Amino acid sequence: MTELVIVRHGESTANRDNTYTGWSDVPLTTVGVDQARHAGKRLNEAGIQFDAVHTSVLKRAIVTANIILDEIDQLWLPEYKTWRLNERHYGALRGQNKDETRRIYGKAQVQQWRRSFYTVPPLLTPTELSNDRRYTKYGPAVEPRGESLKMAYDRIMPYWIDVIAPQLLQGKNQLVVAHGSTLRALIKYLEHISDTGIDGVEVANGVPIRYEFDNQLNIISKAEL
Amino acid sequence: MTELVIVRHGESTANRDNTYTGWSDVPLTTVGVDQARHAGKRLNEAGIQFDAVHTSVLKRAIVTANIILDEIDQLWLPEYKTWRLNERHYGALRGQNKDETRRIYGKAQVQQWRRSFYTVPPLLTPTELSNDRRYTKYGPAVEPRGESLKMAYDRIMPYWIDVIAPQLLQGKNQLVVAHGSTLRALIKYLEHISDTGIDGVEVANGVPIRYEFDNQLNIISKAEL
Repeated sequence: MTELVIVRHGESTANRDNTYTGWSDVPLTTVGVDQARHAGKRLNEAGIQFDAVHTSVLKRAIVTANIILDEIDQLWLPEYKTWRLNERHYGALRGQNKDETRRIYGKAQVQQWRRSFYTVPPLLTPTELSNDRRYTKYGPAVEPRGESLKMAYDRIMPYWIDVIAPQLLQGKNQLVVAHGSTLRALIKYLEHISDTGIDGVEVANGVPIRYEFDNQLNIISKAEL
Repeated sequence: MTELVIVRHGESTANRDNTYTGWSDVPLTTVGVDQARHAGKRLNEAGIQFDAVHTSVLKRAIVTANIILDEIDQLWLPEYKTWRLNERHYGALRGQNKDETRRIYGKAQVQQWRRSFYTVPPLLTPTELSNDRRYTKYGPAVEPRGESLKMAYDRIMPYWIDVIAPQLLQGKNQLVVAHGSTLRALIKYLEHISDTGIDGVEVANGVPIRYEFDNQLNIISKAEL
């Protein structure tokens, strides 16, 4: 039996301000720091010994992961940071207030952008890309101009298949600290949830979700800690 | 031209209490946290864009590295943690007060333990090993019962040669956050310092040292930041 724990980062300034974030690299709020610390305490009580931790290349996830590792006294664990675990890229909605977009584009349109598995948000223009070297080091193909949840799912899965799953199959417990949409995509895969069924799945900031797997990665149990 | 910055961790509780530490996993003091933050600010002013960071598996180095990455806004960098960058293992002196050991063993003996390149400290007994899984995962050979500076040097060099140097040779700037003796060993190698000459080299907590190298890893310049 191996264990996977997934945690959404603590509250970010964008969560607090109710704006779309995506790949914008916003920090945690003080509430978010407390949530991360609380997540660490719950994991410490659960007594799970991890073998590796995986995060995105966005600081709200990385800082949450580091706070958790400090709380569980496992700072020495290998920590892998990958753009593949980044939040879904919200394209031109990035930085916009969610209520404001409802007023501008209508509730139905916003609902579809947020909840449909396939709908792509308004795209950034090529000149609006960040060209941040954390992405350009992979070449020009990595940074999206906007993603549907399906597009995010498709770039997350290679990391699951190639990096996380093989370690779980070796009996090594894994901690994944990532983002709302990233984790919804992972949950969709793990729990065989349909394209429409995933609409109803929410992942709260800083609440660890523990999966126990058998040696074929079938789920034995799932619990919020 | 590529850049290497080496930083000794901020003040630890053992530094404050003037005790031998080695592989004991002690935290930073509040002074140490401030030193780490200051190191980050100096690196931020220097404007160095790193490609990777390397630390030991001891929290005083890891936390210092994470504080620096936060200050320079490069938390997304790949962070490699290796036992090979751990502090020299002080054997049975671990946890003992340095002044106390001078009283017990005499000043000359303590001077030799601390400053000779070849002298091995009193060893731990096999039953005193930590058997911490961060070491046992490599098998029984990794955790020493005590090390001379030479023994520490010999286990650090494979990491320099196999991991850090190749990245510098590719023009990728590297940040190494480690320990007093680890960094003295590295400085000995980089600057071709003799076995006796290394006695006089000190590395202060939280003061970044920047090397600039040519494309053969010859030193062009060295400066404290």
